[in-house]
Amino acid sequence: MAEGQIIVEDSEHLLEKTLEFHVQLEKAWTSIWTRDLKIKTDSFDRVIISGMGGSGIAGALLADLYGSKVTRPITTWADYGLPGWADARTLLIAVSYSGETEEELDSVKVAVERKMPIVAVTSGGKLEEMSGIHGIPLLKIDYKSPPRAALGHLYGSLLALATKIGLIDLTEKLYFQAVDELKKTVIQKHFLDKAEDLAVSLNNKVPIIMAYSPLSAVAKRYQNQLNENSKTFALAAPLPEACHNIIVGTEFAVPEKLQALLLESRYGFSRNIARKKVLEKIFSQKDIPLVPLSVKSGSPLAEQFLFLHFGDLLSFYLAGVYGVDPTPTEVIEMLKTELTKL
Amino acid sequence: MAEGQIIVEDSEHLLEKTLEFHVQLEKAWTSIWTRDLKIKTDSFDRVIISGMGGSGIAGALLADLYGSKVTRPITTWADYGLPGWADARTLLIAVSYSGETEEELDSVKVAVERKMPIVAVTSGGKLEEMSGIHGIPLLKIDYKSPPRAALGHLYGSLLALATKIGLIDLTEKLYFQAVDELKKTVIQKHFLDKAEDLAVSLNNKVPIIMAYSPLSAVAKRYQNQLNENSKTFALAAPLPEACHNIIVGTEFAVPEKLQALLLESRYGFSRNIARKKVLEKIFSQKDIPLVPLSVKSGSPLAEQFLFLHFGDLLSFYLAGVYGVDPTPTEVIEMLKTELTKL
Repeated sequence: MAEGQIIVEDSEHLLEKTLEFHVQLEKAWTSIWTRDLKIKTDSFDRVIISGMGGSGIAGALLADLYGSKVTRPITTWADYGLPGWADARTLLIAVSYSGETEEELDSVKVAVERKMPIVAVTSGGKLEEMSGIHGIPLLKIDYKSPPRAALGHLYGSLLALATKIGLIDLTEKLYFQAVDELKKTVIQKHFLDKAEDLAVSLNNKVPIIMAYSPLSAVAKRYQNQLNENSKTFALAAPLPEACHNIIVGTEFAVPEKLQALLLESRYGFSRNIARKKVLEKIFSQKDIPLVPLSVKSGSPLAEQFLFLHFGDLLSFYLAGVYGVDPTPTEVIEMLKTELTKL
Repeated sequence: MAEGQIIVEDSEHLLEKTLEFHVQLEKAWTSIWTRDLKIKTDSFDRVIISGMGGSGIAGALLADLYGSKVTRPITTWADYGLPGWADARTLLIAVSYSGETEEELDSVKVAVERKMPIVAVTSGGKLEEMSGIHGIPLLKIDYKSPPRAALGHLYGSLLALATKIGLIDLTEKLYFQAVDELKKTVIQKHFLDKAEDLAVSLNNKVPIIMAYSPLSAVAKRYQNQLNENSKTFALAAPLPEACHNIIVGTEFAVPEKLQALLLESRYGFSRNIARKKVLEKIFSQKDIPLVPLSVKSGSPLAEQFLFLHFGDLLSFYLAGVYGVDPTPTEVIEMLKTELTKL
């Protein structure tokens, strides 16, 4: 199928923002890299990255990609409050794109009470106000979009911050190499074509997105994007855990509706990579299509960027297949309105 | 519907083991409580509980229930290897019921290399051998069942261990109060009836199990049990995160197949508890049934036990509705066999 075959009612220009992913990543890094953030490398023993939905995923991506290498624990948090152990030696990186997420504001409130070091990542709202009141360093994002379409800003900010404070072993050079790989891929027609073709094949199907670390959090992003952009049901199935339960749960209710995707990483544990062969055999016996996906990349970070971009395109085109506008998520807006009344 | 209406082909006596949950919990605690485990309370600054599937869920349940109170971080791990920060001040609690799980054995190998304090929870296998070779304290479980049907042994062992080493603020008295509440409920006919009725209503449906902390990990257990016992597709939807994505993803592919369950806790954040009203409104507008579930309990631990037991019964009866034997999980056995060939 040729690119452009799927017509998407895109009233709020989501495709444009999606194709700006690499530009967002560049801007985010550049705006932070030379700033003095006033956070000393030795001022914390552990890190919590808190955030919900399209904001929270940025922390999950960082924790998944660097978790096996960092010498200080990174914990993600997606709830009110904070863990019991969060203390003055725990750095809170609070991510809320809107700055109005009530879960997030509650976490920051607790962090202030506990005298924790805090950094806020936001475009404004109450989180910006709080950062002014409490002298919290602020990484401000100047962009207009739904949170999930600002991932380059959110994740790029986190990566630059984590590098600056000595949390991860990334360098500016490696970062921009990865961004360059992304930039070169964005303009390749076959990348868009592949996303369109896959979207067509997912029509009326429930995607099971299987992935092992360092792509587990990407699978969660795929689920979220398919939910929010395509408005469709989907399941992220982290490996190897899914081999202990989810692969059994395909016989009833919707067996003929299932379609598995396997995000293959070049950088996973060899025994996870080896599972592909077995999973293909199992799903073939079940008569459930399994589509392996892989990208050519020079680093785990580049691989993650490319997979993220592909998933964003996939969910965009699947919205077109279903004939819905990918941007509005009225149910979430309604929920937020109703919550304010409680 | 009266209890006993659903006929389940239960060749390996899963119901019997399920109804022994409270007995398992009693035995597990008693066998550990008076032992000298040779792990000093001040010998670690953080804890990793590792394990896969039916073994790993025990760690997730503990971390979810006590995460907001503990002063030392508890991280769960379900993969090969270990996080980069796992060091000699990090206690590894390695849970593998069979003692043969290759992911788990790899984690223990890494922990030995890093000279980490380790405790093993297993019924035998290579993990027992390794514990002999490396002088690792062993909590041995003497029971015959699939891992998921030994949850009382696994989770009870973890709770006793975590209490003994000063990780959580549980007491023997509180533990047995919770077990007693469970014991009293197990014999109530209406509890079994309710599980049967719900199983009937889930026929040919995809359950979306929504729950907030301290019941988030229970929702994951429900998904696993529905996968393994009922062999059916299911989705755990942790709250409040699901309000940012999953609630939008219901329009396509299988909208008429969805049925939501809401596990209500008396002990969650008030703003999470308050979401019930809004979620009911949203799902009603979507024409998706939402079934709220609650139990009467005297403590968060008792509540968790009761919900776990209810979910085990639910998945058992749903196997009956689908006409499958709940115990065999041939696909997982096949996968393990195939993996040994790689």
